[in-house]
Amino acid sequence: MLIGILGLGTIATAVVEGIAQDGHQITVSERSAANAARLAAEHGVTVAPNQAVVDASDVLIVALTDDIYEAALGGLTFREGQQVISLMGGPSIAAVQALVSPAHVVAKVLPFPSIAQGGSQVMACGEMALVTELLGARNSIFQIGSEEELHHWICAQAVLSPAVLMVREAAAWLAEQGAEPVESERFLRELVGSSLLASPCDATLRALDTPGGYNQRLRQHMVETGMTSRLMAGLVKLQQG
Amino acid sequence: MLIGILGLGTIATAVVEGIAQDGHQITVSERSAANAARLAAEHGVTVAPNQAVVDASDVLIVALTDDIYEAALGGLTFREGQQVISLMGGPSIAAVQALVSPAHVVAKVLPFPSIAQGGSQVMACGEMALVTELLGARNSIFQIGSEEELHHWICAQAVLSPAVLMVREAAAWLAEQGAEPVESERFLRELVGSSLLASPCDATLRALDTPGGYNQRLRQHMVETGMTSRLMAGLVKLQQG
Repeated sequence: MLIGILGLGTIATAVVEGIAQDGHQITVSERSAANAARLAAEHGVTVAPNQAVVDASDVLIVALTDDIYEAALGGLTFREGQQVISLMGGPSIAAVQALVSPAHVVAKVLPFPSIAQGGSQVMACGEMALVTELLGARNSIFQIGSEEELHHWICAQAVLSPAVLMVREAAAWLAEQGAEPVESERFLRELVGSSLLASPCDATLRALDTPGGYNQRLRQHMVETGMTSRLMAGLVKLQQG
Repeated sequence: MLIGILGLGTIATAVVEGIAQDGHQITVSERSAANAARLAAEHGVTVAPNQAVVDASDVLIVALTDDIYEAALGGLTFREGQQVISLMGGPSIAAVQALVSPAHVVAKVLPFPSIAQGGSQVMACGEMALVTELLGARNSIFQIGSEEELHHWICAQAVLSPAVLMVREAAAWLAEQGAEPVESERFLRELVGSSLLASPCDATLRALDTPGGYNQRLRQHMVETGMTSRLMAGLVKLQQG
């Protein structure tokens, strides 16, 4: 496919790295010079001004920041038949559509940086055919029914950060007791990571529910001192903006 | 190898399932009738009284419960040249050694139930050669320098349970907002699990530290409301017994 990238921050760069091996002709905007130069050197993408990116492409992936997307897209001329994927969490599909007509916005897609290597989760809302064709072979695409629901998913995914922090802190504690720090963290990352991937949470929690056992005691301690109720409150706060 | 299993609870059963395909001749004790019958039917192990298990084996895996291991081992006759692996977290290697002489206790090994499928983390303390030969091909063995240090690792691994609980609760919240429950949990399990396996915690947390972003905000909220300090307090409580 002829693919153009408008806006080249961390996530858009990761998307380009994730699809660079698939035989597309990719043109990226010259604004983010460092990312563009690296993608050109490592993956042979073409670097061009924004209008030239649009002119060279059948598919446009738009990942402009909230403060400039209106001015940037408003100053460009799109053509009939072009398909647009928005990687922007802020503006609605309708808001982007109003700026890129007569091109057609097919979907809003929110990947994670690990899409560069593949195996990433991808939240997607809209028409799925192009999204699946571009990203589906090496990633898990989660189709979300509406932009309103997508906002809930964006709130919920933020649990990643406190969950990883918890693992890091337990590993740091173990290292403080004298264990080798890198091995301590690798042990806990592998343990929690592989357990999450292997089974539904309820099955894992049941297997870890030996009365008086270490897992049961630490879980009860965290629940009694408010971890789960504070997580709920934190998610509601995110949802309310 | 000729392998005997004394005590056949969840973990010992999982260990047998994990090594059943490796061409050993395995004899298990008849006390846990249901587990023994299943292993006999599915994996062709022999079921026998405890002394017959000992007599038939060069390697003995001992996984008796805290309340019976002294009486059970004390009533059995071991022979010179037998190697013993203790799966028991409670008694020390020395305590088990005193009960099984002239057999030799090579290591104390604490696996997780996922050892049945392989890809499990295994905490091990003592001589590693036999442990690696038996369990190393399909699992990650973490060699721990002393039994005292092993106790710290057992405390730290309990973070698994609150970490999984956190993912479950965020998924439940997302489902309450109207998302499909199974997909919600699969998304968060895959996201947190694959992120933990892919990179050190610090790298992941840095990538999730966009100022004002959802991940940064939820993490700060959890830290400010005490998650990490309570985790530390909980680990210290486990350590002190």
